[in-house]
Amino acid sequence: MPHIALNSAEPGIRGLLRFRPETGRPLSDLAEVLLRGPSTLTRGERELIAAYVSALNDCRYCASSHSACAAPQLPDGMEVVAQVRADPATAAVSAKLKALLQIASAVRHDGRAVTAELVAQARAAGASDLEIHDTVLIAAAFCMFNRYVDGLATIAPDDPEVYEAGARQLVTHGYLAPPAGPDHRG
Amino acid sequence: MPHIALNSAEPGIRGLLRFRPETGRPLSDLAEVLLRGPSTLTRGERELIAAYVSALNDCRYCASSHSACAAPQLPDGMEVVAQVRADPATAAVSAKLKALLQIASAVRHDGRAVTAELVAQARAAGASDLEIHDTVLIAAAFCMFNRYVDGLATIAPDDPEVYEAGARQLVTHGYLAPPAGPDHRG
Repeated sequence: MPHIALNSAEPGIRGLLRFRPETGRPLSDLAEVLLRGPSTLTRGERELIAAYVSALNDCRYCASSHSACAAPQLPDGMEVVAQVRADPATAAVSAKLKALLQIASAVRHDGRAVTAELVAQARAAGASDLEIHDTVLIAAAFCMFNRYVDGLATIAPDDPEVYEAGARQLVTHGYLAPPAGPDHRG
Repeated sequence: MPHIALNSAEPGIRGLLRFRPETGRPLSDLAEVLLRGPSTLTRGERELIAAYVSALNDCRYCASSHSACAAPQLPDGMEVVAQVRADPATAAVSAKLKALLQIASAVRHDGRAVTAELVAQARAAGASDLEIHDTVLIAAAFCMFNRYVDGLATIAPDDPEVYEAGARQLVTHGYLAPPAGPDHRG
């Protein structure tokens, strides 16, 4: 049960965005530009970084939701998502993405854990400064979203179909469209 | 030296907001609504929560900057900021703010560390659901801002006057106004 009385039965962050639309708007704007805006990282790669950090933070709602968003936007689907969540070093992803995932893991632990060596490795594997920037900010942002969702004890449904339905909506319409459903108030 | 080539010499998050205005805008919007928007928590109390979490995360730039923003907006100024950073339990702040600072500290550690007991204590001390929500989100947001600033190894000046000048600008004009200075590009 959530720690505070929300104004809908929506799970995870969705209930929070509806409860406090003044903060919900910039949070949704941030997710949209970071995960779906113009970038040389694909949408699948960016969702994968979000899913990986959320899994490291043990945030079941965010890890399930962003895994479900990553899978249909990656060539190898849920298989590669599961590989990355188990161990990025042996996953079937590019050397560049492996290096960026290492940076994301460091950020998740502590910003100061991002060493010049990790950055040099990413650059040697072809990462641009903007890709390194966006990876750090995606990882940092999910350290926020995960704490927001779990810090208020929001509901994380068990049914995988809830996350898949949410992902279909997000992959098609993005983070700015109001979620469909009986709780939708326009 | 920052890990990536920025397009200004501005320290801390200011250089990052200028480097990537597409993400800078929602980040500034979030800070403005959380720290300065309409709320039953004073601006000083909210800046104090931000400074406290940033100090726990050992983020020198953010801790210095938000301490400098909190002080002029609190009745007891920098003295109470120093007390809270040393130990909120013995600081000269209200029982409600003490309970909210405990929640912020839990969020900073892990969202799941916010227990029903901590929330009940805050409520017993007079905190509303919205105040509890905003405290969780401020603490979570600074877990993002701190990692963003330190994860890219931005400059944290030693001179306290840099933070005081920044705070005068923020306290007067808020987080949406472009910072003044020779690097300002409008």
